[in-house]
Amino acid sequence: MSSLGVGVSPGNVPVYHGSNLKVIDRRVRLAELILRCLICGLAVLSAVLIGTDTQVREFFTIRKRAKFTDMKALVFLVIANGIAAGYSLVQVLRCVLSMIKGTVLFNKPLAWAIFSGDQVMTYLTLSAVAAAVQSGLFAQFGQTELQWMKTCNLYAKFCNQVGEGVASSLLACLSMVLLSAISAYGLFRLYGDNKGKSSGRW
Amino acid sequence: MSSLGVGVSPGNVPVYHGSNLKVIDRRVRLAELILRCLICGLAVLSAVLIGTDTQVREFFTIRKRAKFTDMKALVFLVIANGIAAGYSLVQVLRCVLSMIKGTVLFNKPLAWAIFSGDQVMTYLTLSAVAAAVQSGLFAQFGQTELQWMKTCNLYAKFCNQVGEGVASSLLACLSMVLLSAISAYGLFRLYGDNKGKSSGRW
Repeated sequence: MSSLGVGVSPGNVPVYHGSNLKVIDRRVRLAELILRCLICGLAVLSAVLIGTDTQVREFFTIRKRAKFTDMKALVFLVIANGIAAGYSLVQVLRCVLSMIKGTVLFNKPLAWAIFSGDQVMTYLTLSAVAAAVQSGLFAQFGQTELQWMKTCNLYAKFCNQVGEGVASSLLACLSMVLLSAISAYGLFRLYGDNKGKSSGRW
Repeated sequence: MSSLGVGVSPGNVPVYHGSNLKVIDRRVRLAELILRCLICGLAVLSAVLIGTDTQVREFFTIRKRAKFTDMKALVFLVIANGIAAGYSLVQVLRCVLSMIKGTVLFNKPLAWAIFSGDQVMTYLTLSAVAAAVQSGLFAQFGQTELQWMKTCNLYAKFCNQVGEGVASSLLACLSMVLLSAISAYGLFRLYGDNKGKSSGRW
């Protein structure tokens, strides 16, 4: 037993035995699990809303179908959401497993992997959302200086559903920002004991 | 003197006295200072490149001038770069001051402020870059499904300079990502001693 109230196992993943830290750690892990489930759900919802969105209009004799593949930014957003949902699902399973086993993360390489993964996901989704919002603004308001006409007046139903999908992605993105802070906490608190080698990687 | 080899001052900002940690901390602070200077320079460069960019073309009797205000995403990018440059300058001054004084950051509210500021700046700049890249792609390649024609074939010099500005912003953004990790380390290592109250905020 160390002074932190944890028993150190061979795999650097100590089994947890009580104290004040237990309550805090449980709260953090619960918040993490809730956020990861939320992100998974929102990302799937967004991908489905945008991916299945379509509207057919007839202009005199011409029949035109609006679909998400008409705009590359929406394709990027659907792909980013798919990756985020898959990643979150894997992380949810890891969280549930560690909660069942009652282990605390003291494994630095794993903490680095989770931190890096969360960072990449957050930046990827944010980029995709920003690009989609920018495209959406062009479609909604046009850009008369460049003679790009607005198209949402023609495809109102299509645009509304895309808007809902983007809003869902934005919520997922905000949850990822919180999650990134949690995984940064999970990693860098391991460097807080200031015992030479631990901090030596910096 | 605490076991960490630091003397705790009343303002929670201990003066540093040697050991292994001193070398590590000096390296981290040097990396932070270099990154902040780099970000400041790149953000100013990007804002100047885009903000001063202009090209006049004559089509028969019509004279048209391309400028960055024709595209809202470029205006957003110039503003974001301006904010990032100002913020980085303030942070550079803080870094230099703390290096001259030889103090180590153990003040949690200040560490939280720096961490939050860096996070906001990174997400803000990344959003602006993503939106500008998306707009640039429309200008470069057009979006024929929506009858948005490419304009960069008409304003090649203007588009090239915007591209250089966006590339400069992207480099600033990547530096900010690294900096965010450094400030997360600076904050969350303070929670690593696991002494009840310190970790209790989580």
